[in-house]
Amino acid sequence: MSNILVVGSLAYDTLTTPQGHVDRTLGGSANYFSLAASLYSQVRVVGVVGEDYDQKEIEMLTSRKVDVTGLQRKAGKTFHWTGEYKNDMSEAITHATDLNVFADFNPELPESYKDSQYVFLANIDPVLQLRVLEQIKSPKLVGSDTMNFWISSKLPELKKVLAKVDVLLINEGEADSISKTGNAIAAAKEILAMGPKAVVIKRGEYGFVLYTKEGYFILPAFPIANVVDPTGAGDTFAGAFFGYLSKRDKGYDLASLKQACIQGCLAASFTVEAFGVERLKSLTWPEVEQRQAQYHNVTTL
Amino acid sequence: MSNILVVGSLAYDTLTTPQGHVDRTLGGSANYFSLAASLYSQVRVVGVVGEDYDQKEIEMLTSRKVDVTGLQRKAGKTFHWTGEYKNDMSEAITHATDLNVFADFNPELPESYKDSQYVFLANIDPVLQLRVLEQIKSPKLVGSDTMNFWISSKLPELKKVLAKVDVLLINEGEADSISKTGNAIAAAKEILAMGPKAVVIKRGEYGFVLYTKEGYFILPAFPIANVVDPTGAGDTFAGAFFGYLSKRDKGYDLASLKQACIQGCLAASFTVEAFGVERLKSLTWPEVEQRQAQYHNVTTL
Repeated sequence: MSNILVVGSLAYDTLTTPQGHVDRTLGGSANYFSLAASLYSQVRVVGVVGEDYDQKEIEMLTSRKVDVTGLQRKAGKTFHWTGEYKNDMSEAITHATDLNVFADFNPELPESYKDSQYVFLANIDPVLQLRVLEQIKSPKLVGSDTMNFWISSKLPELKKVLAKVDVLLINEGEADSISKTGNAIAAAKEILAMGPKAVVIKRGEYGFVLYTKEGYFILPAFPIANVVDPTGAGDTFAGAFFGYLSKRDKGYDLASLKQACIQGCLAASFTVEAFGVERLKSLTWPEVEQRQAQYHNVTTL
Repeated sequence: MSNILVVGSLAYDTLTTPQGHVDRTLGGSANYFSLAASLYSQVRVVGVVGEDYDQKEIEMLTSRKVDVTGLQRKAGKTFHWTGEYKNDMSEAITHATDLNVFADFNPELPESYKDSQYVFLANIDPVLQLRVLEQIKSPKLVGSDTMNFWISSKLPELKKVLAKVDVLLINEGEADSISKTGNAIAAAKEILAMGPKAVVIKRGEYGFVLYTKEGYFILPAFPIANVVDPTGAGDTFAGAFFGYLSKRDKGYDLASLKQACIQGCLAASFTVEAFGVERLKSLTWPEVEQRQAQYHNVTTL
């Protein structure tokens, strides 16, 4: 069985959406990613938590066969994000970002992780993304995500990451920030010139654009009539996307990437049905398969 | 050959987009609709133009076999819209709306139009939409469009129209204004309860949601890397959509509606490639077929 390493955040999120409010629900890119990817493959997680991080959250990952050797617990508090979504929930409003132990995060990989085959660098400081990559001997595929904060504050470092990355997953607004094109196809072309072999532009409820030199692929998200909380949808997409590629383990030709995007959409559609990771935690493979049939039905003649 | 009647605006538009500026280019919902629908069916147009309306624009329609018996020419100037699109062109900014002869438009149908089979009520005052419907003996299918101005100023009249309409085509923002849901699927459900058997929510570059009691269908637009002017994309979609249904002439089961949406997407993708109706005017059936193959390719596994 092939494996996939993810480096990212483990967090508590305090969230307000038109559907309600939750205090300190489990979140963080590494959690969403690991839960989704573990439906497909053996996941290894690298991250840091504080003294307040409930051990049962770690056990929840290990119950999904996620390898947590790379999880550090440090003195201090866990990363805590306070955010809100209004109206159509297309945009997150940040009220507070308490980095806490995440502020001094230095991802050191255990020896047992250094042979990782698939690697996903979630949205963290590009300097740290590079540091993780340097520790991995010969990955088969490297994926990454980023955000506007790094695009505006650390573009040179981010470009070094892009030069080493096979697949970039990025939000549409962030793709526009990098490319200044205002058009997903034009943005994807520009990003490809920076290094990645494939770009996936994530469009929330509008789905995704997959762009490679060999061709592209565009579909909407699976429609959810009652979105409760969009937090983590992108990281869930990434988890199922790279989880699928890792399980398939046949590189990243266009046909594989298309299938990976579909898996990403399906998993993300469950995440938004409840706050935090609640829905994803209980997600089973038969549920994914059932939704895949529905998705096919509503996007095919 | 079945026929389709459209009532809407014939206009000159002065437009500024990130791609350039044009003065008094041909526009108006009835022009976009007629050009697209005439690729499929016999079109009859109802509308009003002023003394400044160039006769060659009318000849352009007749060269496409469009029946212009229902076109009135009145003393005064033609409807003139001045608008602008910025950045990603998702929103039109209106600088001036000079209704001119359109302000007193009273759609009187020639006798030869009263047996029309397919009818499209473009975005005009719902009172006028109703007046058109009253003059048609027994239409097989009635479609309509509307806009926020009528939703906020004439909702009771608009609801009377919806009660008589088979298919509503509407922008996503307008669907939200009617339903206050912030979610396309939820909005479509609410609109269906107002009368239409099918709702098509138009999402610009993100495509459409087709929603009926029998099921739904969602696809992105055909991606255009260099959008020049989005004006008229929605009316072009409607023209190809109803043109297709009229040509097929087998009612509006879900399978037909799905195909009609694809035709709408394809035609609209040409319109946005140039200012005004320029691209649509020269559009040929082989070009549509070629793009249909490309569209299938980028939206199918």
